[in-house]
Amino acid sequence: MQGYRNLSIEEALREIEHRIGPYIGRGKVADYIPVLKKVDPDQFAMAVTTVDGREYKIGNWDTGFSIQSISKAFNLTKALGKRGDQIWKRVRQEPSGRAFNSIIQLESENGIPRNPFINPGAIVIADLLHEIFEHPVEEMLDFIRKLAQNDSICINEEVFQSEKDSGAGNYSSAYLIKSFGNLHSDVHKVLSTYFALCSIEMNTLDLARSFLFLANHGRLLSGEEIVSIQQAKRINAVMLTCGTYDNVGEFAYRVGLPAKSGVGGGIAATYPGEFSIAVWSPGLNEKGNSVAGFKALEDFTTLISKSIF
Amino acid sequence: MQGYRNLSIEEALREIEHRIGPYIGRGKVADYIPVLKKVDPDQFAMAVTTVDGREYKIGNWDTGFSIQSISKAFNLTKALGKRGDQIWKRVRQEPSGRAFNSIIQLESENGIPRNPFINPGAIVIADLLHEIFEHPVEEMLDFIRKLAQNDSICINEEVFQSEKDSGAGNYSSAYLIKSFGNLHSDVHKVLSTYFALCSIEMNTLDLARSFLFLANHGRLLSGEEIVSIQQAKRINAVMLTCGTYDNVGEFAYRVGLPAKSGVGGGIAATYPGEFSIAVWSPGLNEKGNSVAGFKALEDFTTLISKSIF
Amino acid sequence: MQGYRNLSIEEALREIEHRIGPYIGRGKVADYIPVLKKVDPDQFAMAVTTVDGREYKIGNWDTGFSIQSISKAFNLTKALGKRGDQIWKRVRQEPSGRAFNSIIQLESENGIPRNPFINPGAIVIADLLHEIFEHPVEEMLDFIRKLAQNDSICINEEVFQSEKDSGAGNYSSAYLIKSFGNLHSDVHKVLSTYFALCSIEMNTLDLARSFLFLANHGRLLSGEEIVSIQQAKRINAVMLTCGTYDNVGEFAYRVGLPAKSGVGGGIAATYPGEFSIAVWSPGLNEKGNSVAGFKALEDFTTLISKSIF
Amino acid sequence: MQGYRNLSIEEALREIEHRIGPYIGRGKVADYIPVLKKVDPDQFAMAVTTVDGREYKIGNWDTGFSIQSISKAFNLTKALGKRGDQIWKRVRQEPSGRAFNSIIQLESENGIPRNPFINPGAIVIADLLHEIFEHPVEEMLDFIRKLAQNDSICINEEVFQSEKDSGAGNYSSAYLIKSFGNLHSDVHKVLSTYFALCSIEMNTLDLARSFLFLANHGRLLSGEEIVSIQQAKRINAVMLTCGTYDNVGEFAYRVGLPAKSGVGGGIAATYPGEFSIAVWSPGLNEKGNSVAGFKALEDFTTLISKSIF
Repeated sequence: MQGYRNLSIEEALREIEHRIGPYIGRGKVADYIPVLKKVDPDQFAMAVTTVDGREYKIGNWDTGFSIQSISKAFNLTKALGKRGDQIWKRVRQEPSGRAFNSIIQLESENGIPRNPFINPGAIVIADLLHEIFEHPVEEMLDFIRKLAQNDSICINEEVFQSEKDSGAGNYSSAYLIKSFGNLHSDVHKVLSTYFALCSIEMNTLDLARSFLFLANHGRLLSGEEIVSIQQAKRINAVMLTCGTYDNVGEFAYRVGLPAKSGVGGGIAATYPGEFSIAVWSPGLNEKGNSVAGFKALEDFTTLISKSIF
Repeated sequence: MQGYRNLSIEEALREIEHRIGPYIGRGKVADYIPVLKKVDPDQFAMAVTTVDGREYKIGNWDTGFSIQSISKAFNLTKALGKRGDQIWKRVRQEPSGRAFNSIIQLESENGIPRNPFINPGAIVIADLLHEIFEHPVEEMLDFIRKLAQNDSICINEEVFQSEKDSGAGNYSSAYLIKSFGNLHSDVHKVLSTYFALCSIEMNTLDLARSFLFLANHGRLLSGEEIVSIQQAKRINAVMLTCGTYDNVGEFAYRVGLPAKSGVGGGIAATYPGEFSIAVWSPGLNEKGNSVAGFKALEDFTTLISKSIF
Repeated sequence: MQGYRNLSIEEALREIEHRIGPYIGRGKVADYIPVLKKVDPDQFAMAVTTVDGREYKIGNWDTGFSIQSISKAFNLTKALGKRGDQIWKRVRQEPSGRAFNSIIQLESENGIPRNPFINPGAIVIADLLHEIFEHPVEEMLDFIRKLAQNDSICINEEVFQSEKDSGAGNYSSAYLIKSFGNLHSDVHKVLSTYFALCSIEMNTLDLARSFLFLANHGRLLSGEEIVSIQQAKRINAVMLTCGTYDNVGEFAYRVGLPAKSGVGGGIAATYPGEFSIAVWSPGLNEKGNSVAGFKALEDFTTLISKSIF
Repeated sequence: MQGYRNLSIEEALREIEHRIGPYIGRGKVADYIPVLKKVDPDQFAMAVTTVDGREYKIGNWDTGFSIQSISKAFNLTKALGKRGDQIWKRVRQEPSGRAFNSIIQLESENGIPRNPFINPGAIVIADLLHEIFEHPVEEMLDFIRKLAQNDSICINEEVFQSEKDSGAGNYSSAYLIKSFGNLHSDVHKVLSTYFALCSIEMNTLDLARSFLFLANHGRLLSGEEIVSIQQAKRINAVMLTCGTYDNVGEFAYRVGLPAKSGVGGGIAATYPGEFSIAVWSPGLNEKGNSVAGFKALEDFTTLISKSIF
């Protein structure tokens, strides 16, 4: 579309491999739970999968990491796919303009979270998953395995335990939502599901593959429809406006792709109609996004001269 | 790019002409200044201009209206073009998550406005224009006339006076920014410039033409560069994440184009690489965006099956 | 002290009995739990006990009611008496300038509640009671029975159950405090204690008697010291600045006595050196204070020409 | 009243003279305007005047200083005296729970300031003075001279100029109040009055004398009524709940007297029925109250065993 392509995907990845070194290890590894803190910060991976079936990868692409908030994109996909636009009665789709765990807005806005990617919104989506499925964790895990074509993807139990033990802030949000009548199942069950899905481990190639349907009009490469074309576009829109915590404006400005990040250091992005891309490096900036990952994505869209803008 | 095109631009506009009737006149005409309140709500216009030189228009496309906050996109363009990324030291590029005139965030974030499209951010940009130009209003008016290819575009003096007389909230913001040292010129002069540019009148075709450079890699159709390719992309990114007040998420979700709206009922949007589009209808939703305009843009991107997502 | 006395206590109470009729039943009975909602609003009682041993009472003075937040004054007394000024490391003593259940301040002030009478502060005090006592509910009940000289005072189990079932907002606050490390015992145990003490039933005379030590330099009439003179003064100071929700300024202005109110419709006040006074009527104003009770106290201090100012 | 008197006023002042040394010079002299910053921090004064005509003073009691926010108590007195309780339609009487210059509450509470002692509330009172008097500054200066029995009291012109030049925050508040329709006269005139009255210089004895009517049922010792008994009590109540910025709770707790402080380092307090007291030392704590002044008042009420609690 833009016609200003400089490098091919392969050339761009090779260039990034050369350049990214000084950024790896920068920032701060997530430390709110002990097990995340132990991750070696000197790791970096990037993987691209295209709608015409090509795959590219560099760095530690087969090392598993905690997907954390990236799981919120899968949860939104399933909730939207099953329930359609009625989910927007219980969660909005506006950027929060605040840190990801703020509960201030939640109180002033009557328990309707700003969007499905801040923690309170993701808790409401997890509550919806409890209404949709009898066993939401199993269903979601199967779903993600299918998207990633990898049956060995599973939950890291140590991370899961730690999340539950240190999740007082999320319990606070969940009870606040409940006090406004916007959480229907048991708080502890819903949060257990939420934490379990945050504790899923995937590698960078898994992640790129599992986001490809969002670049492919809602379909797997096999042709199977995951969500409708319209819904795929809309999930991309929500990712662009709300997917990277309080960095969404800067991310749109510098990278220009819809994306969802996690404090495990992963970021998954899509270029509608062409490819999905995942990146991972544990060091985080002060907004909770991977420093090297953010930089690599910025370089990538610059080098191949493609962004949605 | 998406390949799911149903209707041509011309067919889509004709279809919208048929459908939009029930939405015209809905919502509430801006009433914070008396002269805006007098506008006849039963008006609607839409215009599209393409990078290959075609133009389409329907409804009251040659009726002038107050562009209001849409001027902020022109001001940002000029400030970014002249000063580059250093402007981001004085204004951020994150969605505010709040109503457009909120000064709460301004106080808690030390006088650095969230983005150039909320009023405080636009005031900082107006202050920058005072540093760049000796006569900022004249310079900006010339600039807009050139973009729109219409030398008769001018300021509505009655609106300008009203803005100044009823602008206590903006004076409050400007002095607050000054108290943090982020406003360098005289408050009254800066606000006079800000109000003058908000009071510019254009018609819908003018507006579509004047945004075309943002869809054309920063250039006029003549080839003249207005801003660099990178800067054009970035202005589009800021419009997408911050351009439609506290509707940005819903707008991205339903329309899927970078856009800037104004309380005069206008909205200008771009589809990078292909076209710019403007729409106008005075009735506003509770977030300050044109009801019929929003609906028409949603229908348009659905009918031609094109959005950036 | 002021020397402008008009009426004696007895005369003032008689006068209030005549005047207060139109105020009884005004306002809205607390309805956040069903059992409180069932209380007959057409009730009113007032009781005065003096440091020289006199007692006066009018209206339904021997009808028990739910003391609710008035229990927070007893809890503070015990925590301050046992731990002294070190409790102020975990809770401040400043008015909140907000509704009694707001958690916004809690988040922006790092989990240190503004004062011991807003819910989050009272939860921290309940947590302290768990550190001080093995069986805090039993200890506090014994303490209150001794103050009121009435061994039949007990917890209303129906209210207690309802509080626990509808207390999502308090669970949210407690977990938020815990997330900042300012709640040490188990959230559910601490809140059970908090709710149990809010569910105590006393009559108006019990209540006046149980506050007399605060007017008597910290001592029972028997001479037994409950808290030191300094601590009694300080509890009075905290009541004056924080005891009546977001009405403290107006209450000081119109009544001029340290007081603690509850949404059961009770208010207990002290006039240091002379008397304690309790009033009860279920109808609440929009800040959560008894309408007739507030009016009766205002009339009382006007009629006897005594206030701390 | 309490009967636990230890020391006489004279003995207490002598004791404080011995003790206060280490506190003088602590804290930070106000630096928001250059002229205040030049004040020698190593100064301290205290003065007491009693309703039976005695006067006591220690330290630099005859050194003039900028009364700053203490002027707000005089302004409130005059506005309340002239207009009565109807002033409370335009300003409330609740503690703000926030820093003295916060404009956040102002926005969320529709331009009705929380109380007359935060800056926005004092600006509304200054606006009222413009409705009451043709020449409010002259009238207020005459009034204060009469209260202090000192015709040489006047405005420090250098401070006045500096206040106007550095008052962007107050301009911001004033325009915000105006945007809600709660400021009727010209913003610049009202603020000029406000700044002029903040720039009055008095010495510590002047200040003690000028607050004596609040301890003397609203009357000068000559018998002349300044405000009614009720109004005097109410001004004391507002001082107790709102007079010492975000220290009111701690001040009530530690000192236990109604008081108004200023960032010039002065604090004036009253003990209704007995005496007024003023203290001055330029070093401020982080809430804007004099460190040595606060400590001296705490020691004073402890040593003479008198507080309103």
